[in-house]
Amino acid sequence: MNKQTHLFELLASDGHARAGVLQTPHGDVPTPVFMPVGTQATVKAVSPRDLHDLGATIILANTYHLYLRPGDERIARLGGLHRFMGWDGPILTDSGGYQVFSLAKRRKLDADGVTFRSHIDGSEHRFTPDKVVAVQENLGADIIVCLDECAEPYDYEYNVQALARTHTWAERCKAAKTRSDQALFGIVQGGIFPDLRRQSARFLTNIGFDGYAIGGLSVGETKQEMHAILDVVDPQLPVDQPRYLMGVGTPEDLVECTARGMDMFDCVLPTRMARNGGALTRTGRLNLRNARFADDPGPLEQGCTCYACTHFSRAYIRHLTRANEILGHQLLSLHNLHLLLTMAREIREMILAGEFQSYREGFWRNKDARLAANRE
Amino acid sequence: MNKQTHLFELLASDGHARAGVLQTPHGDVPTPVFMPVGTQATVKAVSPRDLHDLGATIILANTYHLYLRPGDERIARLGGLHRFMGWDGPILTDSGGYQVFSLAKRRKLDADGVTFRSHIDGSEHRFTPDKVVAVQENLGADIIVCLDECAEPYDYEYNVQALARTHTWAERCKAAKTRSDQALFGIVQGGIFPDLRRQSARFLTNIGFDGYAIGGLSVGETKQEMHAILDVVDPQLPVDQPRYLMGVGTPEDLVECTARGMDMFDCVLPTRMARNGGALTRTGRLNLRNARFADDPGPLEQGCTCYACTHFSRAYIRHLTRANEILGHQLLSLHNLHLLLTMAREIREMILAGEFQSYREGFWRNKDARLAANRE
Repeated sequence: MNKQTHLFELLASDGHARAGVLQTPHGDVPTPVFMPVGTQATVKAVSPRDLHDLGATIILANTYHLYLRPGDERIARLGGLHRFMGWDGPILTDSGGYQVFSLAKRRKLDADGVTFRSHIDGSEHRFTPDKVVAVQENLGADIIVCLDECAEPYDYEYNVQALARTHTWAERCKAAKTRSDQALFGIVQGGIFPDLRRQSARFLTNIGFDGYAIGGLSVGETKQEMHAILDVVDPQLPVDQPRYLMGVGTPEDLVECTARGMDMFDCVLPTRMARNGGALTRTGRLNLRNARFADDPGPLEQGCTCYACTHFSRAYIRHLTRANEILGHQLLSLHNLHLLLTMAREIREMILAGEFQSYREGFWRNKDARLAANRE
Repeated sequence: MNKQTHLFELLASDGHARAGVLQTPHGDVPTPVFMPVGTQATVKAVSPRDLHDLGATIILANTYHLYLRPGDERIARLGGLHRFMGWDGPILTDSGGYQVFSLAKRRKLDADGVTFRSHIDGSEHRFTPDKVVAVQENLGADIIVCLDECAEPYDYEYNVQALARTHTWAERCKAAKTRSDQALFGIVQGGIFPDLRRQSARFLTNIGFDGYAIGGLSVGETKQEMHAILDVVDPQLPVDQPRYLMGVGTPEDLVECTARGMDMFDCVLPTRMARNGGALTRTGRLNLRNARFADDPGPLEQGCTCYACTHFSRAYIRHLTRANEILGHQLLSLHNLHLLLTMAREIREMILAGEFQSYREGFWRNKDARLAANRE
């Protein structure tokens, strides 16, 4: 096993939950951390200064989307992704694998990579492990990830074959990497199958990466199945390196997956819900299009300190949502991101104080109490 | 002539250009002033805190839109428009007349008012002078305006009849007004006809209002025709009361209409252009969808100090615009509003310093130089 640059410092554990610091060329990232998603080099409806005010310490951008538009070479010419999007904090780019495999009939797979058609104009493109590393080196994020194949989670035979490709590609990505200022994460795959997940974690840790992503979850399997996989993967991964659970990050996920040894989370939910008039709260979700909010002078969530909750009523945000006003998206996005960023910070403090279990119990107690109250 | 509450203090004149202060229950408004338009109780894509940062001192909201949705009575129950939209500075509401008359086939006019169908759900409604004052009293803006008829500007006979209605309605609006904390502005109409405009200004000043709006301009007539009307109206209006030129507010208009005695401006242009990928500059307009900006690392406007220009390139904003990202609307809206708010402040300082004429000449010289450079 190669020893990687020591990017990550584990500060405390509480059960399987971990608190640490991830060092990057653009600053430190305290973990556990929620990473807002900036698919097209912008977190939808939220400016970089608002992200800073919210306490975001790292954001995600999508290799597939930026490769197609405006182009990774253009971004490199313009000084790289940080300068391009005006965000001077750490950035992680995904491999584009998930997006390409989501294209279904628009892509063709072989041992060396995948050929696909653009969702924008139908033009043909090809991603290989080397290509995906080159694209991510052009973008210039602090953390890049290997090309992987995100397989249908319940098909064992398919997962065996996909895993073989993902592992070969991981080796090739590591070999292709030329920039020393970028950390490279491997991606553990294997569907819902404990033996494949264990095998994948071992294979990748033997290659040796700067961190490990867990992919192919939250794609249709149950929470129980996801948790079971995390329980399998957690002990297989080195304690002194970060673990990133890809595409997962509801309030409940932050609590339960931190409890299973995960350090980094991302999810489009907070900004996607916002565009549909949805608010996340600690005790459930609100649909602001609902008529019951028409005269509600209260904030989205009682006690929340975000800009939306301290300045505007549910009635106003409902009005904005019904009138299709962009400010509605903006305020709901701010609130939803604030909740997840705040919860990740709270969880970290609780782990450092050795009080994570009581935080976790309190979280579920409050949720159940609200559920019971709503039933009455 | 009734003496109105002295809301306005004229501080200096420079030619016909005027610098003053308009006092309102929610703060002072230095004039000349550009008022961002918040049609549906939000300046599109710009939060109240961003409006404050931009230096906006007063904003506009639309009576017609808010009456229909979410309803003026609802807004009153929720504490009035200021609290509802989280803006604690001065607000002006228009009368809804312009919107209703824009409905064309969806409205029916009589001597007492206008019956119209909602653009949202087709439901039938009626605006009378009394009703429009009552709606605006529910909304609770600092400045409200009379119901008027915005006539086709070139039809003399129609303008004679419309003006008679507008004048009767102005008398009824003044009589209907019950709140002492709101200023009421009359609206001068009369199309492009100097005699009708003069007659209208005299009629309304004889009734006596807290300020005078000039309506029915920038609706199809030429700039020369608009300027000629302002030259006619300016000397008819009391010097110690504010003049509001409705719906007018490009950079060129701010310069040329301030030069003709106007104090207050509003225009949807900065936010509407932003949604279509357009940037205003002192020397012309940019369409950020244009391919020539794809690799342009420069700011929207050289020397501009707004958030967009100090943090992002034309290339990035072009990318956002092409990708239909909301942040593109946000940044272009911030820039466009910043330009108009900044120019209004500069014009005021120049008037106070007695240097407005040289500012005006410099503005056109720069514009012509850019035009010539582009031609080469």
